[in-house]
Amino acid sequence: MNDVGAHVPAPSVTPGDAMADIGFATDHTGLRVMGFSECLRRLGGVAVGRLAFALDGEIAVLPVNHVLDGVDVCFRTSGGSKIQAAVDGDAVSYQVDEWDLAGRSGWSVLVQGTASIVTDEAALARLASTARRPWVPMDLATARWVKVSTRQVTGRMILPQ
Amino acid sequence: MNDVGAHVPAPSVTPGDAMADIGFATDHTGLRVMGFSECLRRLGGVAVGRLAFALDGEIAVLPVNHVLDGVDVCFRTSGGSKIQAAVDGDAVSYQVDEWDLAGRSGWSVLVQGTASIVTDEAALARLASTARRPWVPMDLATARWVKVSTRQVTGRMILPQ
Repeated sequence: MNDVGAHVPAPSVTPGDAMADIGFATDHTGLRVMGFSECLRRLGGVAVGRLAFALDGEIAVLPVNHVLDGVDVCFRTSGGSKIQAAVDGDAVSYQVDEWDLAGRSGWSVLVQGTASIVTDEAALARLASTARRPWVPMDLATARWVKVSTRQVTGRMILPQ
Repeated sequence: MNDVGAHVPAPSVTPGDAMADIGFATDHTGLRVMGFSECLRRLGGVAVGRLAFALDGEIAVLPVNHVLDGVDVCFRTSGGSKIQAAVDGDAVSYQVDEWDLAGRSGWSVLVQGTASIVTDEAALARLASTARRPWVPMDLATARWVKVSTRQVTGRMILPQ
């Protein structure tokens, strides 16, 4: 978890299912719909997620260590294809989940948004101060902070049957 | 794990990094490249993965319980968007990973292939006999088996720094 949310302006995203914070709505397949705030809390509570983006006519899905900056997902990478997606301002998705294999339950959160390279000095300083130490070997000369500006967040929970 | 691999013809996929089964190649970011057979073994050894597919101009990334049928990824779903992607024969990706948060290590495997609805009776019988009991509530009237015909498999491993 981190507390950078306190430093950013109010979110301008569409909390499409925010009403689901009240009560326990289920979708057409019977999964519990997680509300906007629960999705964000769970997103901030895990260390690893997966960036999905178009690459050469295919969809690449690659894990990274993220931090939340307000409602946006940020990660540092020296991976060329992820950096290029951000340079190009691609529409990307970011997914996190957790599973209890014994209990046959779990949850999944999907962020849809736009990738960009973080260049703002204040944001870079904020991210550097809150970031986890990266797991992967990283070429610091080419590493960049990438931000997925959140446009929509959806989440589902599977309860034990 | 399952043993349905014994029942299918030899794979017609491109084991792009099969040479990496010998030795410990690393990619340009210093991650260990996992070979084709190791990727398949790890893919078959986990219960949950994520289907990534294009949906209304975005990328959806949704978890499912999979089984392997030879080198192909199969799952049963009553989810309309996943079924539609299979009906349309979309190019999709399927991703699995495992992480040791304390050890700061893990691996990720990405399958790229083509989605289809399984209609062959022999294949359906084989899948029904090997499938795990589904976790999610499922409308059996609309549920279908979806196959991702594997075209390429890549995998990376992060070793503790």
